[in-house]
Amino acid sequence: MLGHLARRLGLQQIRAGLNQPLSESDTRLQSSLHTIRTISMMPLWPFSSQPRDFSQPNSTWSPEMCKVYDHYNALCDTDTENGEKKRGPWRKLPSYNRSIKYATGGIHLSKMIKAKARLFTRNFKEQGATFEYVVFVNKEEKRCVCVFQAGHLLEGAPGHVHGGAIATMIDTVTGTLAGFLSGPIMTANLNIDYRSPMPLGSVVLIHSALDQIERKKQYITCKVTSADESKLYTEATALFVSISVDHLFGSRN
Amino acid sequence: MLGHLARRLGLQQIRAGLNQPLSESDTRLQSSLHTIRTISMMPLWPFSSQPRDFSQPNSTWSPEMCKVYDHYNALCDTDTENGEKKRGPWRKLPSYNRSIKYATGGIHLSKMIKAKARLFTRNFKEQGATFEYVVFVNKEEKRCVCVFQAGHLLEGAPGHVHGGAIATMIDTVTGTLAGFLSGPIMTANLNIDYRSPMPLGSVVLIHSALDQIERKKQYITCKVTSADESKLYTEATALFVSISVDHLFGSRN
Repeated sequence: MLGHLARRLGLQQIRAGLNQPLSESDTRLQSSLHTIRTISMMPLWPFSSQPRDFSQPNSTWSPEMCKVYDHYNALCDTDTENGEKKRGPWRKLPSYNRSIKYATGGIHLSKMIKAKARLFTRNFKEQGATFEYVVFVNKEEKRCVCVFQAGHLLEGAPGHVHGGAIATMIDTVTGTLAGFLSGPIMTANLNIDYRSPMPLGSVVLIHSALDQIERKKQYITCKVTSADESKLYTEATALFVSISVDHLFGSRN
Repeated sequence: MLGHLARRLGLQQIRAGLNQPLSESDTRLQSSLHTIRTISMMPLWPFSSQPRDFSQPNSTWSPEMCKVYDHYNALCDTDTENGEKKRGPWRKLPSYNRSIKYATGGIHLSKMIKAKARLFTRNFKEQGATFEYVVFVNKEEKRCVCVFQAGHLLEGAPGHVHGGAIATMIDTVTGTLAGFLSGPIMTANLNIDYRSPMPLGSVVLIHSALDQIERKKQYITCKVTSADESKLYTEATALFVSISVDHLFGSRN
């Protein structure tokens, strides 16, 4: 039973990662193991009452992914040695496998609607196979950055990421920013230019920024680049419209 | 072992469907069971040398899905009673879980690239949970229709289909048409207007048509409607560019 749960949690993979021989000259791998060690100290879902945060690092994250994660994580709020909080410009957003479940009254609503429903980007149990990502948001600058690693089950053209998987991440990241700034929203338009095919396994940055607001409309711009920002994969604009919950469920009648 | 394979194939669900009591007045259910019976007579993957065709009906397809499938299937080539072939305007396209594997030389190529890679829309073993769809193409009219049933693991807003999952199907269907008409292509642009939120479990039609061709560029239009075509969910345009295989793998260097 515990073994089964451990497999579900990917603990075996995490522990396997901790047991890997560590070359001192490989600072990337050190960084990767540092983040894995950090999560092994945390209370583990489902043994805690906390829902699982899918944006926590795991052993399938490549050294490149961990390096970028560490970079932005260091720019978030941190606890200093004397126990004080040091403010940072960035904030890491948690990510669950259902948007409604953890909102006010969400548990009851999610039971009413579809108990088996899961967020599209977090529906897969096998870590590393599909969407591995974490979103950092900068409220003052009204922008966010997502670090995304594309798993092997996201294939479109042979060896490359499906255009729909890239569109999914663009919708997710731009929508996260719009929702963070303005509350409940729905996607009204996505306009995506695919500049260069993205190989499976790539680690990319999805930069998203608020362009303008017109009443209930929010215009967001988006760029997908390589982790070192030297290569442009995709550019997009997104339009979101603020909605009430009534609007959403009115559509079901 | 056989039981395990049967579960993988969803045979238990199919057989459960065959044993359901059938009301004679319910023509929709009759239609559904007709298609399920049809596939139970076919050679079953992995016992045959044929790859599994994911666009074959299964027991998770709703009566509404089966009804539309039967409608278009009846307009495809059929064998008449005297053994002749009767030509139909539509053709049902098969759908595998890897685009490269079954192309010329594809088996070797797929081994060279990523053996574990799977097509994004066909990466899930559990039938009915994500993308259930089948594409019918009309070569003469340069258009195609996809019947798509949105599973419970495609959630975005609570109870509704993720915008990225809709974008994925639009990319898939418009790309299938472009590829069918012109050979290897890559998505260059998707411009998607989301008109109305789509409840999870919906069966929709994705209508796609060639708008124009300019040298290597193919412009495709797309509409996503309810199965009875009374409700418009999404409108889109897509631009594809013809490529050579060299182009794709040149990007990896």
